[in-house]
Amino acid sequence: MRGSMYVAVIITLPFAAWSDEGMWTIDNFPSSRVSEKYNVDVDEEWLRSAQLSTTRLENGCTGSFASGDGLVLTNNHCTWGCIQNLSSDKRNLSDEGFIAKSREEELQCPGQQVSVLVNLDNVTNDIANTIGGLADAEANEARKAKLTDLESACEEAAGDKLRCEAVSLYNGGQYFIYTYKRYDDVRLVFAPELDIAAFGGDPDNFNFPRWCLDMSFLRVYEDGKPASTPNYLRWRESGPQDAEPVFIAGHPGSTDRLFTTSQLKMLRDDVIPLWLLRYSELRGRMLAWKDTSPEAARIVQQRILGIENGIKVRRNQLKALHDDEMMAIKADQEAQLRKSIAADPELQLAYGDAWNLIDNAIQAHQNMYEEHLFIENSAALNSELYGYARTIVRGVAERERPNNERLRAYTDAALPQIEQRLFAARPIDKNYEKLRLTFSLDKMREWLGPDSKYVHRILGKESPESLAASLIEDSRLDDPAYRESLWKGNEKELKASDDPMIQLALAIDPDARALRTRYENDVEAPRVRGEEKIADARFRIYGTDTYPDATFTLRVTYGAVEGWEEHGEMIDSFTHTNRLFERTTGQRPFSLPASWSRAREDLNPDTPFNFSLTTDITGGNSGSPIVAGDGTLVGLAFDGNIHSIAGDYWFNQDNNRTVGVNTAIILEALKVVYDADHLLDELTVVQ
Amino acid sequence: MRGSMYVAVIITLPFAAWSDEGMWTIDNFPSSRVSEKYNVDVDEEWLRSAQLSTTRLENGCTGSFASGDGLVLTNNHCTWGCIQNLSSDKRNLSDEGFIAKSREEELQCPGQQVSVLVNLDNVTNDIANTIGGLADAEANEARKAKLTDLESACEEAAGDKLRCEAVSLYNGGQYFIYTYKRYDDVRLVFAPELDIAAFGGDPDNFNFPRWCLDMSFLRVYEDGKPASTPNYLRWRESGPQDAEPVFIAGHPGSTDRLFTTSQLKMLRDDVIPLWLLRYSELRGRMLAWKDTSPEAARIVQQRILGIENGIKVRRNQLKALHDDEMMAIKADQEAQLRKSIAADPELQLAYGDAWNLIDNAIQAHQNMYEEHLFIENSAALNSELYGYARTIVRGVAERERPNNERLRAYTDAALPQIEQRLFAARPIDKNYEKLRLTFSLDKMREWLGPDSKYVHRILGKESPESLAASLIEDSRLDDPAYRESLWKGNEKELKASDDPMIQLALAIDPDARALRTRYENDVEAPRVRGEEKIADARFRIYGTDTYPDATFTLRVTYGAVEGWEEHGEMIDSFTHTNRLFERTTGQRPFSLPASWSRAREDLNPDTPFNFSLTTDITGGNSGSPIVAGDGTLVGLAFDGNIHSIAGDYWFNQDNNRTVGVNTAIILEALKVVYDADHLLDELTVVQ
Repeated sequence: MRGSMYVAVIITLPFAAWSDEGMWTIDNFPSSRVSEKYNVDVDEEWLRSAQLSTTRLENGCTGSFASGDGLVLTNNHCTWGCIQNLSSDKRNLSDEGFIAKSREEELQCPGQQVSVLVNLDNVTNDIANTIGGLADAEANEARKAKLTDLESACEEAAGDKLRCEAVSLYNGGQYFIYTYKRYDDVRLVFAPELDIAAFGGDPDNFNFPRWCLDMSFLRVYEDGKPASTPNYLRWRESGPQDAEPVFIAGHPGSTDRLFTTSQLKMLRDDVIPLWLLRYSELRGRMLAWKDTSPEAARIVQQRILGIENGIKVRRNQLKALHDDEMMAIKADQEAQLRKSIAADPELQLAYGDAWNLIDNAIQAHQNMYEEHLFIENSAALNSELYGYARTIVRGVAERERPNNERLRAYTDAALPQIEQRLFAARPIDKNYEKLRLTFSLDKMREWLGPDSKYVHRILGKESPESLAASLIEDSRLDDPAYRESLWKGNEKELKASDDPMIQLALAIDPDARALRTRYENDVEAPRVRGEEKIADARFRIYGTDTYPDATFTLRVTYGAVEGWEEHGEMIDSFTHTNRLFERTTGQRPFSLPASWSRAREDLNPDTPFNFSLTTDITGGNSGSPIVAGDGTLVGLAFDGNIHSIAGDYWFNQDNNRTVGVNTAIILEALKVVYDADHLLDELTVVQ
Repeated sequence: MRGSMYVAVIITLPFAAWSDEGMWTIDNFPSSRVSEKYNVDVDEEWLRSAQLSTTRLENGCTGSFASGDGLVLTNNHCTWGCIQNLSSDKRNLSDEGFIAKSREEELQCPGQQVSVLVNLDNVTNDIANTIGGLADAEANEARKAKLTDLESACEEAAGDKLRCEAVSLYNGGQYFIYTYKRYDDVRLVFAPELDIAAFGGDPDNFNFPRWCLDMSFLRVYEDGKPASTPNYLRWRESGPQDAEPVFIAGHPGSTDRLFTTSQLKMLRDDVIPLWLLRYSELRGRMLAWKDTSPEAARIVQQRILGIENGIKVRRNQLKALHDDEMMAIKADQEAQLRKSIAADPELQLAYGDAWNLIDNAIQAHQNMYEEHLFIENSAALNSELYGYARTIVRGVAERERPNNERLRAYTDAALPQIEQRLFAARPIDKNYEKLRLTFSLDKMREWLGPDSKYVHRILGKESPESLAASLIEDSRLDDPAYRESLWKGNEKELKASDDPMIQLALAIDPDARALRTRYENDVEAPRVRGEEKIADARFRIYGTDTYPDATFTLRVTYGAVEGWEEHGEMIDSFTHTNRLFERTTGQRPFSLPASWSRAREDLNPDTPFNFSLTTDITGGNSGSPIVAGDGTLVGLAFDGNIHSIAGDYWFNQDNNRTVGVNTAIILEALKVVYDADHLLDELTVVQ
């Protein structure tokens, strides 16, 4: 499938001018390149408008303002957590969908936060000055302390409702402080039924042609009232044209395109296989447990889809990393860069050891990978109640220390978000908790071995089943008031708690912190130093006309509505309503909700439904607005095709496609299927 | 862990003279090498005696005769199928164990067969003459037809109760006809409780130190009476000495040491990951289903252990194949061989294209891997009832054809075994059947995609759940009489059957056969031809003092009782009873049966329990006798240590160890725990 032209070009030019590759920061957007290729003028104002009308959902998604009253368009799958938290055995908002007929009926999403980027400040020099001359481990600590100080200074200067976050771009090539306006009262306005939002379920996930109404509306509130959001997008009624240039603003979560070949190899041989084995088994346990009762099915329905999504992503990541041709290109690029460095004594002195630093870090990581994963990263204790316990135990201890000496997750800048999540009332199903905790304790024993000191410390003479049962039954951490009281107390009070989950978290913490320290010194410190060196070398040799790996910060990408060739046949860029009904079998995940079956005759069979486009996005972009050159919203990004998963490592213009929901079907569905005239009235729809 | 000496030696000598490597055929055993290293004289008579006292269990294991009355010692885990088939919701022989107080109480194992190799006949020249000058695909067909003819001729000459099977050794370097005496009335005599037979369960599987009484006794019958088996082993009461030379005769199932690097890479990148993903999920489904009722737990208890064993094997196979150092050695060996071939024009002409043939086969296989696996290899239809249906549908059609034009699985030589299994009365749990069929249909849709023609043909508008439910509910193939009646009918009668599983098997068969033909012509034919060429070249360049990959045929391996070094510490070669009781937690899989708890004070704490040895074995050797130089039985092979799994690809003397049960603990347990004096009396025990 991969054409030779693509292969040739990527070898000689790191970022091919003619391709739509790149998740660009707004301060370095390639406007002239876009103007040349697509004849669209993306100026400062255009970018500023995109910035202010795009939102980050703090659960890992993107959204866009759809009205001046805080209405946010995002994906349905970005609101599954909220829908779960608002559902009960009496009311299944996932199966039934939800529509607030008035603002009074809008339901607050527990713990949900929405942010808008309002400022960005380059602090690369501050960091360089701070770590200059320090050994790797000291530099690692000093770098973090400085970032914490910079965040604090920013928040003090910014005042209420603004939050400051340090960002590393280009794997340490640049450091920024990003300032966000953050909304912490977020309410559910509208969500279609899961059967149409995720029509085709896991089998169709990452597939195209596709028919998903994967959209929801949220609304951000301030002081109990809908927030005023003057920067919002007008919607185009007809959606995009075929071949039309389009742009996506959003928060892509993570890519590894700047990884060294040795880092990719560790992903391929260690990280991804272990993840896949664990989650394939958990998927199986959840699928079998789902059949034990309707309530169990309700609890795990969307969680299973989430795991299945992760499995499909990782097995296609693995497939990509087994592509010898692409890996050879990566190796060639790396060899070219190292050759360029070696050719210049000054560069060689400054950057020549970068790959050794990273390889040492990998070796150290492989020597502790399972222990660090299961104990410090809590893979042994897959439980929301344990997550609360760990947060409380760490937070209460860390708060006692000076801000810039704390673990970065517990700095003053981070505490409000922690508390928002910790104090939110969310339903916890104890049977499901037992299922996942039993599973993860069992995997700990499997991967660390029954004679591991960590396994002995955690299990003692218990089995995974018996320990999980007693921990979950006896813990009171499902009560938000109890969590709040523990959080607000001191370490002595915490140690006096009789909650078994708290006691377990306290008992493991010394082991976990020891593993963390070892990881920071032996893995993180040399890796970050090595990555910084490579980033600097790339800037000096290739210039700054490049984009950084995704970091869940605002990016803009460009492209066009376009299909692709698969096994010699062209895939059309649009799907239409008629084939949705043809694809229906009556059996999940290919069954339609009653509302759609009823509306069949009233829906225009020719309405465009989903579409594919050449933009370069990844997970975290879910819910991103797809905007035309004229600034109108024409679609809503919700997925990529199967080839887009390789985009974690490289962008292939030939077949990497974004998949979006057309504004045409959203508007028609709101009108014909859901009678949501009050929402249509709130939108600004143009022809 | 791997010493440099090992690495150096294996590069220069394919089979290092000083190592205990090799699963040797009895017609090519390296007696002089053994005599030199261990000062034990293994002559023809010794080998003949090992041959006749060693049995093959047709469910994939080995055993040995323990008396002249047909008593067979094997592993407990080799009798799980029998124990399952003889258990019910009223009587759980797995949890309770089983001891026949008299021969009348011995219980027939449904479908179980036991074989003894009585003759072997080299037919390599017949095959070479048959396929000489033919193109690959024609050669492939002619080779199979000839093997079928040779089997038929052998059976005609041999008479009743003898069965003839073609065997390919050295990946096509040699062809043999092996003749077996086959017993098809096999009865369960004694089995300890699962809790002691598999003490430590999956966590301790492939671990050592170890405490498992993984043994059972079966008995072969002829004409309703215990068979006369004059070739049996005397047992040594004290077990082996540390460092004592020992031998294992048995039927190792499969190794891939002669694979090309490209074949290993396909295993690593395609075959093993797909298997692991599928079976990890099935494991999860079974673990969650197990908790739904005590009866569900009884049904899947041992099946889960079986799957967990497979997962541990394959994830350590994957780990071995990710060992870059060992893979580089493999690549070097291959390069050396190719260089030797290329250096001689005659060899180059005869064998130079062997690797291209295999690489073409791999390419063709990768292009159809999932379709062939799910449709022709039935991975889509993981169900015993479907297995019956497929056997009946194929068998009834194939029987109509001349013997040497049939699929090899349905030749006259194969039919008795098929019928033995098809007609045996075995309990089928329909709920468990639904679980696994739902799972496998779901995986078919996941891997082939919802738009695959095969998926449409099988699922239609059904979901995996709904189709599995109706197929299993409505099929009558759980009735042996119904199976027999269909089998004995003709194709027309079969097509008239209203059994939905039969109808499904009939409907898929044309697709499946088309995939099979494509596989045979494009994958098997060039691969076998390429492998034959490499095998011939190796014989010509390296000579014949080598052993073939394992093929579930009789092999003898040698070594010594020995521990190994792990993370700088020596692992003792013996464990003793005292630490079994220390390891007990009271929670499965570390709980003891009541019989052992009761007997604790009467058991000698110093009795040797399990032990490790340097012999080169693999799966299929389970149940193999461990024999000292004097011919006495000193142990029972039941496992390897974790490093032994890499033995599929290479043998590492430093850490590859067999794990066995000591005859000392077997004898003591029979006496003290089980009061089985009648069995002890039957054995011939020497000091």
